[in-house]
Amino acid sequence: MKYRLSEIQAITGGELVGDPATVITGVASLGQAQEGDLSFVKSEKFVAQALQSRASALVAPKRLEGWSKPLLIAADPTVAFAAFLERIAAEKHAQPLGVHPSAIVGEGAKLGPQCSVGPHVVIGRDTGIGARVIIYPNVTIGDRCEIGEGTVIYSNVSIREEVKIGKRAIIHCNAVIGCDGFGFTQADGKHVKIPQVGAVEIGDDVEIGSNTTVARAALDKTIIGRGVKIDAHSHVAHNVVIGEDSMLVAYAKLSGGVKIGKGVMIAGDASFVQNIEIGDYCIIAAGAGVSHSLEPRSVVWGAPAKPMALEKRIQAILKKLPELREEVRALRRAEPGKRG
Amino acid sequence: MKYRLSEIQAITGGELVGDPATVITGVASLGQAQEGDLSFVKSEKFVAQALQSRASALVAPKRLEGWSKPLLIAADPTVAFAAFLERIAAEKHAQPLGVHPSAIVGEGAKLGPQCSVGPHVVIGRDTGIGARVIIYPNVTIGDRCEIGEGTVIYSNVSIREEVKIGKRAIIHCNAVIGCDGFGFTQADGKHVKIPQVGAVEIGDDVEIGSNTTVARAALDKTIIGRGVKIDAHSHVAHNVVIGEDSMLVAYAKLSGGVKIGKGVMIAGDASFVQNIEIGDYCIIAAGAGVSHSLEPRSVVWGAPAKPMALEKRIQAILKKLPELREEVRALRRAEPGKRG
Amino acid sequence: MKYRLSEIQAITGGELVGDPATVITGVASLGQAQEGDLSFVKSEKFVAQALQSRASALVAPKRLEGWSKPLLIAADPTVAFAAFLERIAAEKHAQPLGVHPSAIVGEGAKLGPQCSVGPHVVIGRDTGIGARVIIYPNVTIGDRCEIGEGTVIYSNVSIREEVKIGKRAIIHCNAVIGCDGFGFTQADGKHVKIPQVGAVEIGDDVEIGSNTTVARAALDKTIIGRGVKIDAHSHVAHNVVIGEDSMLVAYAKLSGGVKIGKGVMIAGDASFVQNIEIGDYCIIAAGAGVSHSLEPRSVVWGAPAKPMALEKRIQAILKKLPELREEVRALRRAEPGKRG
Repeated sequence: MKYRLSEIQAITGGELVGDPATVITGVASLGQAQEGDLSFVKSEKFVAQALQSRASALVAPKRLEGWSKPLLIAADPTVAFAAFLERIAAEKHAQPLGVHPSAIVGEGAKLGPQCSVGPHVVIGRDTGIGARVIIYPNVTIGDRCEIGEGTVIYSNVSIREEVKIGKRAIIHCNAVIGCDGFGFTQADGKHVKIPQVGAVEIGDDVEIGSNTTVARAALDKTIIGRGVKIDAHSHVAHNVVIGEDSMLVAYAKLSGGVKIGKGVMIAGDASFVQNIEIGDYCIIAAGAGVSHSLEPRSVVWGAPAKPMALEKRIQAILKKLPELREEVRALRRAEPGKRG
Repeated sequence: MKYRLSEIQAITGGELVGDPATVITGVASLGQAQEGDLSFVKSEKFVAQALQSRASALVAPKRLEGWSKPLLIAADPTVAFAAFLERIAAEKHAQPLGVHPSAIVGEGAKLGPQCSVGPHVVIGRDTGIGARVIIYPNVTIGDRCEIGEGTVIYSNVSIREEVKIGKRAIIHCNAVIGCDGFGFTQADGKHVKIPQVGAVEIGDDVEIGSNTTVARAALDKTIIGRGVKIDAHSHVAHNVVIGEDSMLVAYAKLSGGVKIGKGVMIAGDASFVQNIEIGDYCIIAAGAGVSHSLEPRSVVWGAPAKPMALEKRIQAILKKLPELREEVRALRRAEPGKRG
Repeated sequence: MKYRLSEIQAITGGELVGDPATVITGVASLGQAQEGDLSFVKSEKFVAQALQSRASALVAPKRLEGWSKPLLIAADPTVAFAAFLERIAAEKHAQPLGVHPSAIVGEGAKLGPQCSVGPHVVIGRDTGIGARVIIYPNVTIGDRCEIGEGTVIYSNVSIREEVKIGKRAIIHCNAVIGCDGFGFTQADGKHVKIPQVGAVEIGDDVEIGSNTTVARAALDKTIIGRGVKIDAHSHVAHNVVIGEDSMLVAYAKLSGGVKIGKGVMIAGDASFVQNIEIGDYCIIAAGAGVSHSLEPRSVVWGAPAKPMALEKRIQAILKKLPELREEVRALRRAEPGKRG
């Protein structure tokens, strides 16, 4: 890669301080940057570290006293830097347009213009693929699916029949969408499978992490709203509904029928029992085990999950539980009845 | 899809009340059903909801006062409805018979009649595939495996060498069967791999969830008994034995050598340390961390797992731990020795 | 398989006691061994069990009184036995040399001598594959990767662009290397993706478990040191660094930027919050939730993780928490102020 700073400014916006002809050949964090690299100063907090950086130019929120090399000044340096990263990523990921001859496209399937369908991809019957969709190698997409324009599906992903995915979504490697929900009933002392014939609907701008699974509904639909970001190793069970712009960090475990509101933030390794409802803008701390519905804007931690302030107090006391027990023992020894 | 109610009755059994020519074009839950849909009333509890449903017909345990549209009356409505769902699912999943020309079948492999082997499937040498087995695209099956008749293997599954799977099993997308167990010894301060040369044996009617892994034994066999149902993201380590009809909800974590009895119910996200034995019909609550063997019919919760009743009492006290500490503080302030 | 004991001795080393012509046709644990099998006696502790074994020969640390069949005596029987298992495994895994005609090898990719590239493998542009690398079916490797000599990559693995893997590494089925880290910033109340343009570097002799994911760095590199062994279902997030010879049991959850020292032992289902540093030779117990940096050789347990000895004391008291509460209640009833 090789860019002049003026070209980068055209991508990121912001004010350029210094030589617009400065050549940038890489990107790196402040600490790892070498000559030729562009780096960025996330906020005031990182200014001291920035002044030590060997980067050839910085994206920064303001002029930096003591920094004599070029600067791109942007109101939000992270957003500006991300815009440039997007250009780099697009170049790295450029895939040949068209359908690779080894791909198998089912009868009645329709592909929009400028798609890239990689080697050994299998697309089912009557499936629709929007414009500019990129499908990496060894992906399997079932019958009667709809994939919106600009969506990227990485290698070895499995998408089963009748799944609908919006525009500009990203499905990471080896994720599974539309697998059977885990539904059984009992008859004669045996587990009898309830066939899962519902669907999955995923909104625009959704990201689904590597090795994450989204089960289809038993009946009706599993729904993931616009802008939802789900990290790796998560499980969205049958009939779950996730509201717009919610974020689920790795190993989010959503049991069947859970409803998650809008803008909910779920930290890593949190789990949710069946059929509960989590209000808008809740915050769920890492490792929480949520066992009941939550009002909007609740903040919880612990397993079972409790209000954050309460769980913090409990954890603080737990750390001193041996002392508490000693106090009780001392009190018992001192009891009047034990003296006389 | 389009069925007359009389055709559905022929599948589900039960008594038909109303017009047998009623046309059914879909299935849905009570709340989501629209005209044309068949829905079902699981039990007495759902009767009020049923009476509000827009479904064109219901499977129900008895006649419903206030419901004038057709009914299919079945002793167990869930089982009857599931029988119809199975027909729908079979139609949705119908795969072309035969071996797709892009599939690679190893030397000495034998396929039974009426199999469906999808595009880009790879089947190893000397592997036997029973009658009516369906293998979805991009599946890899190793050498010297045996897959029983009627089994379904979804896309991107990996089955390594010398794995034996019974009849009518279902292996969901991207599951892995027969990967190496995690076995090392130490020599000269380094980890030395113990090659894992054992096998995996999976019984009839077993279901293995998406992205679940079943490791082969170091020596001997990892065994999953008839009728066992395992949900997504679970891990069955080397030399585990699971008894018949046990059920493991998502993220079940079974360490090496764990023995699970028959009819055991393991809720989500439960983990088991190495080499312990869980008796028949135990119930393990969600998130439990089981650290020792359990007698048959034990019911446990917590991490480390304790008898359910004890853990419930502990959790109830924990919620009030700040109050307990305050009481102790108050007692100390009131101590006779502190007064005088 | 069929070996004479003298041939086995040539592989394992050690002293042979008994008939060198003894024919060995299988391997098994002491309890499962049948005639024809070789088994092994891990240590003194297993001698009584060994004397009951039906094995035709044993690898043992010393002569066993009461055992009249042949013995291979080795200082470390596990290491000696593992050497023989490696031979068996190599035979089981023997793959045809060369590139299968259905594999797709990108422009500019280079393969070393004696590689085996299975059916439907896809190798990206300008990727280098070392000598004797074995790639199982349906693997996808991206552009500009480097795979070191002798490495084995099992089926359905996804390796994205610009990943570097050392020599003799083993990547198990359906693992993902180089997927995007989970990095977003906020703008106008929406999550804005920070494109992940860093790399992944994996050392020699590393093992990555089935369905494990290793995310690429946002910038810079995610690094896994020489000899590290990672079990199934683990997640190594962006910019993590793992020191040499560390071991991570299944479901290890490493958040972004975590630094793990050398020789660290992480038991199953442990999680680590972002950007913390774990010193060399730490031991992290199963299920621990590590929320802060740890000094070298720390031993922790619990969630949040505490020093092992403290957590053990807390857990012991928790088991008796109902009794502790009763004691406090009794003290309150006995309080002088409550008497008069």
